[in-house]
Amino acid sequence: MALAVREPGRKLRPASRHLARQRATRVTWTKNGGRYSAALTPLVAPPCEDLMLAPSDTVAVLSIARQDFLSFDSSATCGDVVARFSDAAHKDDVNFACLKQSDGRFLGLVNLRDCLAEAATRPAREMMIDDVTPLTEDTTAEDAARKVLRTRVHCLPVLDKAGRIRGLLPDQAAYQFMFDMADEDAAKMAGIVGVAHDHDNYMNLTIWQDYRRRIPWIFGLAVAGLAAGLVVHAYESALDVLVILALYMPMIADTGGNVGTQSASLITRAISFGSITTLDAGRVLWRELRVALLVAATLFVFTYLKVYFLSNGAEIPMGLGLNDIGIAIGVAITVQVVSATLIGAVLPVVSVALRQDPAVVSGPALTTIVDLTGLLIYFSVTTRLLGIELAPA
Amino acid sequence: MALAVREPGRKLRPASRHLARQRATRVTWTKNGGRYSAALTPLVAPPCEDLMLAPSDTVAVLSIARQDFLSFDSSATCGDVVARFSDAAHKDDVNFACLKQSDGRFLGLVNLRDCLAEAATRPAREMMIDDVTPLTEDTTAEDAARKVLRTRVHCLPVLDKAGRIRGLLPDQAAYQFMFDMADEDAAKMAGIVGVAHDHDNYMNLTIWQDYRRRIPWIFGLAVAGLAAGLVVHAYESALDVLVILALYMPMIADTGGNVGTQSASLITRAISFGSITTLDAGRVLWRELRVALLVAATLFVFTYLKVYFLSNGAEIPMGLGLNDIGIAIGVAITVQVVSATLIGAVLPVVSVALRQDPAVVSGPALTTIVDLTGLLIYFSVTTRLLGIELAPA
Repeated sequence: MALAVREPGRKLRPASRHLARQRATRVTWTKNGGRYSAALTPLVAPPCEDLMLAPSDTVAVLSIARQDFLSFDSSATCGDVVARFSDAAHKDDVNFACLKQSDGRFLGLVNLRDCLAEAATRPAREMMIDDVTPLTEDTTAEDAARKVLRTRVHCLPVLDKAGRIRGLLPDQAAYQFMFDMADEDAAKMAGIVGVAHDHDNYMNLTIWQDYRRRIPWIFGLAVAGLAAGLVVHAYESALDVLVILALYMPMIADTGGNVGTQSASLITRAISFGSITTLDAGRVLWRELRVALLVAATLFVFTYLKVYFLSNGAEIPMGLGLNDIGIAIGVAITVQVVSATLIGAVLPVVSVALRQDPAVVSGPALTTIVDLTGLLIYFSVTTRLLGIELAPA
Repeated sequence: MALAVREPGRKLRPASRHLARQRATRVTWTKNGGRYSAALTPLVAPPCEDLMLAPSDTVAVLSIARQDFLSFDSSATCGDVVARFSDAAHKDDVNFACLKQSDGRFLGLVNLRDCLAEAATRPAREMMIDDVTPLTEDTTAEDAARKVLRTRVHCLPVLDKAGRIRGLLPDQAAYQFMFDMADEDAAKMAGIVGVAHDHDNYMNLTIWQDYRRRIPWIFGLAVAGLAAGLVVHAYESALDVLVILALYMPMIADTGGNVGTQSASLITRAISFGSITTLDAGRVLWRELRVALLVAATLFVFTYLKVYFLSNGAEIPMGLGLNDIGIAIGVAITVQVVSATLIGAVLPVVSVALRQDPAVVSGPALTTIVDLTGLLIYFSVTTRLLGIELAPA
């Protein structure tokens, strides 16, 4: 059943956008047992505006693989391969062809250049590249692109369940997909929605379109920011008693956002390069905990010294010393750094486990969460340690 | 004069890292009239750890271009071209060769596949691709990569001042460079330093190395965050008089960071895709101003309605009504949204004009700046509009 996938509000991937634009093909998405697959059909006019896009978690490798590849029977000679590549009508930029068995199953890859170097009568099968691990058609485009970029041969075949060749993924296409994805992730982390189409048209969007891609996160985060306001509001009497607390409040909140963004961004990168998986969650947390403790120790020392030596003229209530206050604020920032780092580390791992896009949580959502937890930590730690009584709000 | 470029603390680009790793070559940087150029020399062992890297603003196109390309005299035939490509010793994955004039100057590009399709005796010159605009060797790698990705032929030659061919830049290399750059920019925006080497080794860094790439921004921003604390501290008496101000304070600061990050990120993207330049600064500001006014209007309405209808039980001093307070806070958020959006738009343009990397200012630095300006705006606007007298701090 053919299905045009363009549901409003779904996250979209720029699947094969560039391919389609350059080579004037239309992508048709086919739903098959819960998965989408795509076919590229030649078109007369570039279908750039009309291109169908797939939800990000269902972009299959076939949507970025070439489907106009050459394939040969196992009996083909090097001369046969060169002759087909020489066909002026076949203007592809990929130098690889597939050899297939008599039942159509994949046998191996051959490189045009290898065949060119040999006598025309030599069986192409003897030139086959043997260390090729084919992709299956249910591989995601992202996994497939990573695998191609790690191979020595710069190209991998895509097979269906029966072992028949469905497409060929060259490294150009893999790089292009990864580049589009990195770019799209950067936009998501900045809280911009629906970036699939706006690659290079900053000036071309209408003001209204530009507004619509920015306002959802801005509005949502403004509402969420009221929660942080409630915390400040609830502890306003603590600020009355100890005015110096106001001085360190923005630093506590901001530092949480900064350390959380760092760890979320590093872990999102590591996940997207395949160097960690959700199974490594324990090791990731242990590593982040140790780094966070070093960062927290640095800021504890800085904060304590700042409070102790550079608080000239601050009003300190009876019974409290700068030593106590320095330690209390230092403990608060320590707890905030460790918790925000771990929240930043956990969110991308959890979002991958839940099949969500980690780039979204690594951005504005994270900052808002650790802002709130940071203010809660700050006021509860300092009022507890310094024995400040809160007036009823 | 040969010069190994690895000064501590300089921003590094992952120039030709992947190339060198895969093809076992060493990059040697040569300083020539204030510019760096690179030569790739074959090596026995992959020099991954030992690779020289260039400062980001001096990566020239030759560091990512192929230097082992084929070139032919203008008298070469299609058969000559095919024969050289067939040479088993020349295992490149680029299908293009250069034709040169008798004095060595560039004449045009030919495609192996075009020559294969023709009679061996036909002059290769007749198959030349004529709409090629060569790159010059003083082009930056970034500009060159963008130009290649826009061409129809997927490959561009790099010429020296005399018009001689120095290298060939295929689209694989261009995509790879752009992908590395997008990835590196994402890390910079998260405030992580020295990302050139840590592509896929999240688990391999020591805790101490990981600490060192995170602490510079965290520490610097914590110090800067104290300035925002001074603002809250200075206006503490306003919070005393009008407790409800505390409720909206984090929202004002956060919203500034959010809108600023959006506009900085969109403009950084537009600059890096070449769709705007520093000459467009006026048009960019005018566009951002209009989008910001729409966003600000939305938040003004939201804030006013929230204050007016959902402030049950808030202590309001004599002489002030919820209508006045709603308008005052709404005006403050309007000013904050517009100013933070414009600051976010100006910083990347200014940093490009000053030849700095826009990704750095689009990240943590921006958030800290608009946090500070936001609190100043918030307290000065509300105290002015509501006539709140400040107690001497």
